[in-house]
Amino acid sequence: MKEFGIGIDIGGTTVKLGIFKTTGEIVEKWEIKTRKEEEGKFVMPDIANSICEVTKKLNISLDNVEGIGLGVPGPVLEGGVVNRCVNLGWGVLNIEEKLSHLLNGIKVKAANDANVAALGEMWKGGGQGFKNVVFVTLGTGVGGGIIINEKVINGAFGAGGEIGHIQISASETESCGCGKKGCLEQYASATGIVRQCEKLLENSEYNSKLKDIQPLTAKAIFDAAKDGDKVAIEAVEFLGETLGTALSHIACVIDPEVFVIGGGVSKAGDMLIETVKKHYIKTAFHASRGADFRLATLGNDAGIYGAVRLVL
Amino acid sequence: MKEFGIGIDIGGTTVKLGIFKTTGEIVEKWEIKTRKEEEGKFVMPDIANSICEVTKKLNISLDNVEGIGLGVPGPVLEGGVVNRCVNLGWGVLNIEEKLSHLLNGIKVKAANDANVAALGEMWKGGGQGFKNVVFVTLGTGVGGGIIINEKVINGAFGAGGEIGHIQISASETESCGCGKKGCLEQYASATGIVRQCEKLLENSEYNSKLKDIQPLTAKAIFDAAKDGDKVAIEAVEFLGETLGTALSHIACVIDPEVFVIGGGVSKAGDMLIETVKKHYIKTAFHASRGADFRLATLGNDAGIYGAVRLVL
Repeated sequence: MKEFGIGIDIGGTTVKLGIFKTTGEIVEKWEIKTRKEEEGKFVMPDIANSICEVTKKLNISLDNVEGIGLGVPGPVLEGGVVNRCVNLGWGVLNIEEKLSHLLNGIKVKAANDANVAALGEMWKGGGQGFKNVVFVTLGTGVGGGIIINEKVINGAFGAGGEIGHIQISASETESCGCGKKGCLEQYASATGIVRQCEKLLENSEYNSKLKDIQPLTAKAIFDAAKDGDKVAIEAVEFLGETLGTALSHIACVIDPEVFVIGGGVSKAGDMLIETVKKHYIKTAFHASRGADFRLATLGNDAGIYGAVRLVL
Repeated sequence: MKEFGIGIDIGGTTVKLGIFKTTGEIVEKWEIKTRKEEEGKFVMPDIANSICEVTKKLNISLDNVEGIGLGVPGPVLEGGVVNRCVNLGWGVLNIEEKLSHLLNGIKVKAANDANVAALGEMWKGGGQGFKNVVFVTLGTGVGGGIIINEKVINGAFGAGGEIGHIQISASETESCGCGKKGCLEQYASATGIVRQCEKLLENSEYNSKLKDIQPLTAKAIFDAAKDGDKVAIEAVEFLGETLGTALSHIACVIDPEVFVIGGGVSKAGDMLIETVKKHYIKTAFHASRGADFRLATLGNDAGIYGAVRLVL
C-alpha cells in the first residue's frame, strides 16, 4: 500500500477534498466550488486540477497515492457509472474512468454520497469498531447507507440505502420529492418534523411556545420538547415512531450491529436517540433488539473519510 | 477443490442430505428422521453416521469431500454458533465444530435454513444468473433469505432475512408467533391469507364458493380467484399488497436484482407473481422498480443445494 489516499465528496454547491495517510490520519482538507454549468462538464477537470495543485504544494507525488475515492449525490452503479445526477447536470457518465483518465490512470472508486458517509462513520466516526452499520442522515431529507462486513451496499440499481423512501404511511396525501406518497423522509427529516408539528399546533388548544416561532425549525421543536412543551414532545415522539419503525424494517432485512444517526436533526442528541430506540424496540424482531444506537461524529467530513476508505 | 461436497437441511421432522459433485450435479440424496429427544443430542451423531454409511456405499472417501454445509431452523451466528433452536431442542451449541469433530475435522459451514435455501435458489433455482437475490418463502409462515454478491447475509444477531417479521400493520390485535402484532407473516403466509379471507367472507354478502369449503386453504382461495370469485380476488389482492409493500421496504435497503418466491403458496404461480409485482411497483423507490420477480424452482431441495454451496 502506498503512503497516501484522496477522498472527495462532490456536493451541489462545493466539492470537499481531503488527502489522507493510508493509515487514516488526515493531512490536508479543502473545498472548491462545484461548477454545474454546461451539464457539469467542468466538475471533473476542476477536481483533477485542484488535486494536482495541492499535491504539488505539499510535495506529494501522485505515484505515492494509492487511489482516489469519490462520493456522488446520486445513484452509482458497480463499475463507476452514474446514471443521471440531477444535482450536477450529469447524464450517463463513467466517473471512475473519467477522473482516472485525467490523472494518469490512477485508481478511482465511486459510490453514492450517503453510502460513502456511512463508510466514513464506520471507519472513523460513530460506528467505529463495528463492521455492520446502518447510517441514517436526517437533514432536509432522510438519507442512508448500509455497510455489511465493512463494504458499502450499492444495490443492483444504485439504490442501496435509500431508506428515506421506505413507505411509512399508505394514507398520506402530500407527495414526497421522489413522487411517491408517505415516504419516511416526509416524517423523519428536518422539514418532516416541522410539517408534522405545524399540523399538531393547528389542531391543539395547548398554549405551546412554538406558536410564536416563525419560521418553525427542527431545533426549536427539540428545544421546546426538552423544556416539556406538550406539542413539541408529541412531534418528537411521532418522528421517533416513524424512524424507529423504519429501522425495525431494516433490521428484519440485514440485522445490523449498530444504527448511526447523523445530519442536522441529530444535533438534538440523546433525546433523539432515546426516542427512536424506544420505538425501535417495540417494533423490532426480538433477536435484533440488541442493536446499538449511536450519534454520528464526523459531521460534514464523513464523506471525505468514507471516500478515501473506498480505495484503501 | 476436491471432487465432492455435502449439503444438509435439518428440519424439525426429517434431515435432508445430499452428496454433490463440486461442479453442482447431485450424486445422491436421502433423508433421515430428526431425533429431537434429550435436547436433540442425537441429531448430529445421526447425521455423521448416515454420512459415513452412504459415502462408504458410494465408494466416496471423506478425504475427497471439500466440506459440509448445514441449514438449521433457527438463527446461526458467524462461526457456527446456534443460539437456541426451539424446533430441535438445542441450547447454545457450535454446530460447525460439533459435526467437524464427529467427522475427522472436515470443513463445516452452517447458516439459517431460509438463508441457505435462498443461496440454493440463487445457485441452481429461480435466481440462477443473479448475484443479488431476495428469497421469500410463503408457507405456514413467511421466511426469507438475503444474498448480496453471492453471499448469505446472516446478520449480527442471526436475524438477517427475517422478513416475515417486518411490521405491516400497527393496528393488528392478534399476535404473531414471534410475540409482536402486525407482522408480514400474519398476512402473506398460507395461514395469513386464510385468516384474512375468513374475515372477508364473514362480512360479505357476495355468494362466494369459498363459503362451502371447510377447512379453507390458500390453494382453494387462489383457485377461486382464478375463477373470478370476488372475495377470493380481494384476499389475493390483500396478500399482494402486504407482500409487495414489504418487498418495497427491502428494496430501499439492499436494492436487489431479483425477488424469488417459493413455499407452498407459490404454487399459485403467475397470479401470485403478477399481483405482488403490481403492488411492489406502486410502493417501490423508482430506481428499484426494474427488479425481476421469479418463482422458486427447487422446492424442498433448495436447502441441500444452498447448504453445499456454503462450502464451495
